[in-house]
Amino acid sequence: MKIAKPIQNLIEAFEKLPGIGPKTAQRLTFYLLHVPQTQLDEFSQSLSKLKTETKTCSLCFNISQNDPCFICSSPQRDKTKICVVEQPLDILTLERGGFYKGLYHVLHGVINPLENIGPEHLHIYDLLPRLNNGVKELIIATNPTMEGEATAMYLSRQIKSKPESNGLIITRIGRGLPTGADIEYADELTLNKAFEGRVNF
Amino acid sequence: MKIAKPIQNLIEAFEKLPGIGPKTAQRLTFYLLHVPQTQLDEFSQSLSKLKTETKTCSLCFNISQNDPCFICSSPQRDKTKICVVEQPLDILTLERGGFYKGLYHVLHGVINPLENIGPEHLHIYDLLPRLNNGVKELIIATNPTMEGEATAMYLSRQIKSKPESNGLIITRIGRGLPTGADIEYADELTLNKAFEGRVNF
Repeated sequence: MKIAKPIQNLIEAFEKLPGIGPKTAQRLTFYLLHVPQTQLDEFSQSLSKLKTETKTCSLCFNISQNDPCFICSSPQRDKTKICVVEQPLDILTLERGGFYKGLYHVLHGVINPLENIGPEHLHIYDLLPRLNNGVKELIIATNPTMEGEATAMYLSRQIKSKPESNGLIITRIGRGLPTGADIEYADELTLNKAFEGRVNF
Repeated sequence: MKIAKPIQNLIEAFEKLPGIGPKTAQRLTFYLLHVPQTQLDEFSQSLSKLKTETKTCSLCFNISQNDPCFICSSPQRDKTKICVVEQPLDILTLERGGFYKGLYHVLHGVINPLENIGPEHLHIYDLLPRLNNGVKELIIATNPTMEGEATAMYLSRQIKSKPESNGLIITRIGRGLPTGADIEYADELTLNKAFEGRVNF
């Protein structure tokens, strides 16, 4: 079927994004035909600059405009705590809460043997030198999935076997029922974890 | 909350798209941090060229690279039929079927009094001069919604009152149950239309 090439190109670009199928790609493209050229130019600029104007923080591996990033270089952050996350997006979500004032460490993935991702592909070993500088607690906040748990397990074992872990507390984020949940619909594993993780009332 | 400006800009650009909320905008942006710069550049180019390298066909008002568009200028199309649609995307969908070989006419919207869109904002009156050139059938294919039906009604009345409609057949796309549907779950209006539009078996 013949369709104007510039339209076809944009549909194809949208289709490459995760969770966007051919129909949504078409809808978005034809929607954009009605927006002002300035909005298209802004969108276009944001895309081309996304990676060229950002860098990876050499300390925590977060994506930032500066190196070290604004969290690592902030004097207001509690430098005795490091929270290990899978992705930069996790930092965004945790920061929105505003309850955590320590530093971060981004692994940029999880150990996944099925996809040939081993610990050497992640920023796991870069964590060790950071533990010398007065860090007292390491909070492992990988996702509670099979891969996230395995990565948490591997990470804690690796660190405990090293001299840097002397006096270091390694914790894992709490497991249980999310706020607003219904026990009736909770799965067995979550309920099990909620019972294991019960606290004094 | 502080977040790298280039990332924030792209999240905001995605949020402006219909059906894309803050969470999806974040997910897409952080996904794009992992793709090669060439893919970002291609995407960026497609966006900025979307409107600059396309034009509106002066005959049918479809969006195309050339004027007249490839459908209006094709010698293979049946020039005795014109199908009226709401949006250029509708042409894409109809062409995918490949069963229609006539010409099109894009209204670029529907009459919607609540949003102050009257017939003068659409390409309704541009249709009249086209009817002189041996057109025998006008197929009104606006959506079967309240606004689409009202627009179809208005359009057919306008054209019937003009001398250009002499001998012209005006038709409306068929209404009834879509293929694969279940009578049990069909709404009353659709069933009513299916009975009204019954054909000899």
